[in-house]
This record gives sequence, C-alpha cells and structure tokens, in this order.
Amino acid sequence: MPTIVVDVMPKAELLDPQGKAVAGALARLGVDGFSGVRIGKRFELTVERADDATLETVKKLADEILSNAVIEDVVGIEVVE
Amino acid sequence: MPTIVVDVMPKAELLDPQGKAVAGALARLGVDGFSGVRIGKRFELTVERADDATLETVKKLADEILSNAVIEDVVGIEVVE
Repeated sequence: MPTIVVDVMPKAELLDPQGKAVAGALARLGVDGFSGVRIGKRFELTVERADDATLETVKKLADEILSNAVIEDVVGIEVVE
Repeated sequence: MPTIVVDVMPKAELLDPQGKAVAGALARLGVDGFSGVRIGKRFELTVERADDATLETVKKLADEILSNAVIEDVVGIEVVE
C-alpha cells in the first residue's frame, strides 16, 4: 500500500530549544562545520490509494491535525511508495 | 549555506504509540482510507559545505547521536539546498 510522507518543521523564526541542544552537543563533541540544527516531525501515512482525493485529505490533515499552525510549518507532502 | 536532512523513524517492528494515537484520532474524526500512521523525527542540519567528508560525518552522527539504534532506523540522509 502506498505511503505518504508529511514533513513538519518548527517555524524558522521560532527558537528551537531541541535543535539548540543537539547543536551544543555536537560542538562539545568537537564536531564542527555545523552552524544550526532544527528538529521536526516526519509522518508516514499508509493509505489505500494515493490518488488526488487522498492527497487533498492529507494536505488538510497536515495543516489541521498533524501540525500546529501557530508554531509549525508543513514543509513537505510526498508519495514515497 | 547548504542543509542536510536526516530522517529517523521508529523501527518498523516496534509499536509506535504516538502513531497509533494519531491513527485513532483520524478514525474518530471519520477520516478513512488510512491504515497506519508512524511518526519519526526530521533533522535539518545547516552545514558550511555539503562535501563528502561532511556527509560521512553526518552519517556517523545520524547513527550514533541523532537516532537510538535500538529502537530507531535512519531512513534518509539528503542534501536539500
């Protein structure tokens, strides 16, 4: 059955404390060359059909349920299988 | 500056309580056609150069720091910008 991936990230202008924590850990471990880390969510939705109607539904779900429009952006919706 | 995306998902054979909760919510909202929901993490790493050495480092970080190898799989590492 096809899988639709929805990627949700914190809004760029917001502080991302988790991302900052990981970036700090990388620096402490002596790993350089990384100027920023941001952490979001990746949803894998198994669907019966990956047709246009389903994609429309997924877009609506992504905006209304899978993400919090105040602090997050849906950055990608993709059929992967 | 280029961004490298690392996608981490719970191992397929493990129970994904968060995913189950979202799938249940979709069913209760009368949204059908979705037989499964799995939720993972999406890391966006801003790097100075997206060269092979950096990609090697990212692969190592993904396996050792950004994911818990016992319960998660790194399902994708991609330069996006």
